[in-house]
Amino acid sequence: MSAFAAATAVRRRDDAEAGDHVRYDAELDLGWSIGGKPNGGYLLAILGRAAADAAGRAHPLAISGHFLRPPEGGPAEVRVEVVKSGRTVATVRSTLWQHGKPCLDSLVTAGELTGEPVRYARDAMPDLPSPEDCRSRAESPFRVELLDHVDVRIDPATAPFPEPTGTPTIQGWMRFHDGTPADELALALIVDAMPPTVFNLPMLGWAPTVELTFLLRGRPAPGWLAFRAQATVVADGWFDEDVMVWDATGRPVAQSRQLALVGRG
Amino acid sequence: MSAFAAATAVRRRDDAEAGDHVRYDAELDLGWSIGGKPNGGYLLAILGRAAADAAGRAHPLAISGHFLRPPEGGPAEVRVEVVKSGRTVATVRSTLWQHGKPCLDSLVTAGELTGEPVRYARDAMPDLPSPEDCRSRAESPFRVELLDHVDVRIDPATAPFPEPTGTPTIQGWMRFHDGTPADELALALIVDAMPPTVFNLPMLGWAPTVELTFLLRGRPAPGWLAFRAQATVVADGWFDEDVMVWDATGRPVAQSRQLALVGRG
Repeated sequence: MSAFAAATAVRRRDDAEAGDHVRYDAELDLGWSIGGKPNGGYLLAILGRAAADAAGRAHPLAISGHFLRPPEGGPAEVRVEVVKSGRTVATVRSTLWQHGKPCLDSLVTAGELTGEPVRYARDAMPDLPSPEDCRSRAESPFRVELLDHVDVRIDPATAPFPEPTGTPTIQGWMRFHDGTPADELALALIVDAMPPTVFNLPMLGWAPTVELTFLLRGRPAPGWLAFRAQATVVADGWFDEDVMVWDATGRPVAQSRQLALVGRG
Repeated sequence: MSAFAAATAVRRRDDAEAGDHVRYDAELDLGWSIGGKPNGGYLLAILGRAAADAAGRAHPLAISGHFLRPPEGGPAEVRVEVVKSGRTVATVRSTLWQHGKPCLDSLVTAGELTGEPVRYARDAMPDLPSPEDCRSRAESPFRVELLDHVDVRIDPATAPFPEPTGTPTIQGWMRFHDGTPADELALALIVDAMPPTVFNLPMLGWAPTVELTFLLRGRPAPGWLAFRAQATVVADGWFDEDVMVWDATGRPVAQSRQLALVGRG
């Protein structure tokens, strides 16, 4: 079992059925944290796994997560309500609870990709230096626990360290250190595993995400995943982060956008 | 009262409190439809209005809508659950019900824009012909009821009629026919009021949206709103539609992305 599969495992409880929802146990692993707080994409992967299981579908196709309060490491509960189960997709509410409080709420549309090839892609995979010629995110001065599991390589032209570039774009490569391929669910983590692009403006500080929507757009081939993250608008105390991920064959496989508060301090 | 405000009004019921949620009555107006089905952005505006009211916040900042089944015109109910009310934002589940079934489920993060100016914008407003030199969406061969309320002008270089352009981009201008300015909530409608960009590939046919996330990024100045919509990936039977809206001063005010099934027939 891959480290990712183990860290995002959910177990349907024996007394699972409770009113309109089904309960799963999860164990939040602080090895997938940033500064002691479980990574948002890691949490979304857990919610997506429980949602797909409860709905009996292959994958989450769209996960809209709204962040309420950061959970701690350790036991947590996922409550899943299947709102509608249709022919093509099912829609599910999947919520992370800990200590009697909701921490992350999400709506998930789950289904199965048809496997048809790409008919149109606006953007080609960026022209990146090889992973060997990129800089490891672990070179950054911030301790990021998640990097013990995810090997994040940043195109030096876009790295916010040692000096911010002035442009809120970061691109590069990712894969798991344990050599397991990233599956569809892992992409929900991947879209949230790069440094905030606004570090390049530079705008540092804790920037809490309030909303992140992940779209699964293809089944990833094994190997390195390429990513490009960009802030498109920083205004009114908020910024967005727009991410596209390609697999090793150059196929787009995931995209996401999140809304976060501009960091303080 | 503007036609939009009237058509998206919600009324808190006298017997509003029901378990963990609060109930609002709404009246779905088929004047805001496409082919007899209420427009998705129109429905999101209704859910956002009820959510902001229940949370006591100025605006929805992020609305993630997952579409379950198209409602009919006429009476409907919005059930709002305030999941968390924090200092900066509140998070709310807002669901549209009709005939005892949920039609559209959403999570909404509501709050208030700080009014700070734009600190960074990746994309400038597109260089568009004047509204007078654009083509009205109403020239399209499809009857779109919504266009009786929304004046949609399309840059001829991007219009899917009379002939598709081959590129899934559509840009242009919008405003209300009744002369009222589009407010923050109206932007949730605006992001969904252009023709599907995949008409330009051409891929015609009924293309049901399963998920649409709207982000409010600024308070719009009165006047025409400029928009640019683009599909970024068409693959596996799905396409996304990515939209940015600017106000008449060139300020970005809204963005959205939706996931839709490639049309059949």
